Amino acid sequence: MSRRSSILKAPRRQARKLTPHPGEPTHGPLTAEELQLAVRNHSMPLEALRSDTTPAGLHYLLNHFDIPFIDADHWHLRIGGAVQRAVELSMRALRRAPSITLPVTLECAGNGRSLLRPRPLSQPWTLEAVGTAAWTGVPLAYLLTQAGVDDDAVEVVFTGADSGIQGGVSQQYARSLPIAEALRPDVVLAYRMNGAQLPPQHGYPLRLVVPGWYGMASVKWLSSIQVLTHHFDGFQQQVAYRYQQDADDPGTPVTWINVRSLMVPPGVPDFFTRRRFLPAGPVMLSGRAWSGQGAVQRVEVGIDGKWAPAQLEYPAAPFAWCAWSMPWVADAGDHELSCRATDASGATQPLEQAWNYQGMGNNAVQRIKVTVTVE
Amino acid sequence: MSRRSSILKAPRRQARKLTPHPGEPTHGPLTAEELQLAVRNHSMPLEALRSDTTPAGLHYLLNHFDIPFIDADHWHLRIGGAVQRAVELSMRALRRAPSITLPVTLECAGNGRSLLRPRPLSQPWTLEAVGTAAWTGVPLAYLLTQAGVDDDAVEVVFTGADSGIQGGVSQQYARSLPIAEALRPDVVLAYRMNGAQLPPQHGYPLRLVVPGWYGMASVKWLSSIQVLTHHFDGFQQQVAYRYQQDADDPGTPVTWINVRSLMVPPGVPDFFTRRRFLPAGPVMLSGRAWSGQGAVQRVEVGIDGKWAPAQLEYPAAPFAWCAWSMPWVADAGDHELSCRATDASGATQPLEQAWNYQGMGNNAVQRIKVTVTVE
Repeated sequence: MSRRSSILKAPRRQARKLTPHPGEPTHGPLTAEELQLAVRNHSMPLEALRSDTTPAGLHYLLNHFDIPFIDADHWHLRIGGAVQRAVELSMRALRRAPSITLPVTLECAGNGRSLLRPRPLSQPWTLEAVGTAAWTGVPLAYLLTQAGVDDDAVEVVFTGADSGIQGGVSQQYARSLPIAEALRPDVVLAYRMNGAQLPPQHGYPLRLVVPGWYGMASVKWLSSIQVLTHHFDGFQQQVAYRYQQDADDPGTPVTWINVRSLMVPPGVPDFFTRRRFLPAGPVMLSGRAWSGQGAVQRVEVGIDGKWAPAQLEYPAAPFAWCAWSMPWVADAGDHELSCRATDASGATQPLEQAWNYQGMGNNAVQRIKVTVTVE
Repeated sequence: MSRRSSILKAPRRQARKLTPHPGEPTHGPLTAEELQLAVRNHSMPLEALRSDTTPAGLHYLLNHFDIPFIDADHWHLRIGGAVQRAVELSMRALRRAPSITLPVTLECAGNGRSLLRPRPLSQPWTLEAVGTAAWTGVPLAYLLTQAGVDDDAVEVVFTGADSGIQGGVSQQYARSLPIAEALRPDVVLAYRMNGAQLPPQHGYPLRLVVPGWYGMASVKWLSSIQVLTHHFDGFQQQVAYRYQQDADDPGTPVTWINVRSLMVPPGVPDFFTRRRFLPAGPVMLSGRAWSGQGAVQRVEVGIDGKWAPAQLEYPAAPFAWCAWSMPWVADAGDHELSCRATDASGATQPLEQAWNYQGMGNNAVQRIKVTVTVE
């Protein structure tokens, strides 16, 4: 660890000068920096909405820094802070602990950011920063209970092995959860994804998965869990992942996933424009819907702005997406297809996105332009 | 197949009007269309150069159209054309045939395109459209020999199940190989990747892998192999994947991979700019090099334009990348790091890229800006 500290100390002192703030949201064109982020951080192609479980390699990825390649044999998870029995656990010990498997839909809090006007300068997601996987691992509550959380505990902070500079601050990626969230029975320290070993880019050998929260909470390459008696003030908690109106607004934290639905684009694409083409006649429109704030209760499909209800299926678990479908008899011409979901909290996807400074929590309805052709 | 045909017929007739050519190469900013392609087509983050075999989900992806999700139980490979015994083979039959496993480095022919000036409008790769996997499957030569290739055979055309419109032409993705290439002992019809089932996005249930050729030759979702007594004139052969100087130049076909090397960016990144920071002192620079045109014989590392030879390791197979490394004692300040490889044909990576109209076959040296800090 001394080597990592030395890497990180120097930039911290001069960080403001070396790495200025990415800048104000822009009406300008896409930048080379955004492209670099787009090529690193993989989206889920929308045709993968056909699968209940996103195939390996198609689940979205958002990694702030480099992917660490970790030797699991020499890796330990440290649990400490406001606990009665601090511990260090090897992967071997963790694999002997009780395990659960949960299907969970994860979505990046910045999904849809590149569609905002002005456009916040960060990872330029279009709509595909989502995926559903079955995560297997140890319930966090089990380990915290074993460690014995102090009565005055307020939050639990999770630190990953990935490090770098963001907003002028040298850091290891770290996020906290309120103690009540950390003790939920479905928050898991996962070491398997879809029945296989966790891939490096998804947090090998161990990651947190917080069902229902945007992906930033599910810390990867987990190296430390510290129970705090105060609020965590790390960069990813207090600066990044806030709903703000401007740079000076302290804002509110990004937490649960807003209700959203997406459609499998019907027909076939044009390679460059990705415009869709399909023949006139019956076609089954389908997709998925999810929310961190209550079960999805309704999905409507819009054909040129006229809405009709879709058929909904049950999700595999409370925080996994559910399938929806609606038959359509496509008539020749250009059309705009949309879908919008409503959850048990009463929240419905907006037609126009309310803007915020970091481009967080977007869930405006998807719009797909299709050209229907006749024989 | 009748349903697919009906989808494709209509756009073909009016294709020119519906989907104009992406347009001339541009000095303008990145377009929304390029971003859409960048989010679909995954790059290999350069830190994955650490691995001999690219971990599942990190290998590059370039899919022209949608990823087909194929039911392997009802799928058949048709082999026909200028052969004595046309056959249809199930996956079950193919799995019973003799198999080989080969480590192969694949690279997209358009890798590096977004760095060109003017910039051809297509998938805007930076440098990461590469990956190495161990492919397991049936040697193509075995199946062609079983089918009995006619003496006047000239080419073999491979057609995938992926379809859409490109350059105004409705098509299933299809590419040909000269008969001599198709009969090479190391050209494989792969159904496993790194010991696991082929993922959907890499061509499940069956794909072609042509070692040494740019990735466009390795047709995915393979549904048909036809032996021809003439040259194949499909879009992906005669229009796309050509070295051209302008739109009217018939050009020459893109075939073998040009020699290239890449470096693992040392230190840690800034989240937005991806600039690298590392502490002064010794650091091991490392990366990979490959070529489709002869074994890699030399890799040099450039520090601020001064070149020194790196240590080379043997590749796992003739068309798999080889590892290189060179120690560097980093001194405080800003530096530019580069690497360049030379292969047995005598070809060396250029410092400045020769331009072509489609942005094909780029292999200019990578340049990494680093800031070295002192304690």
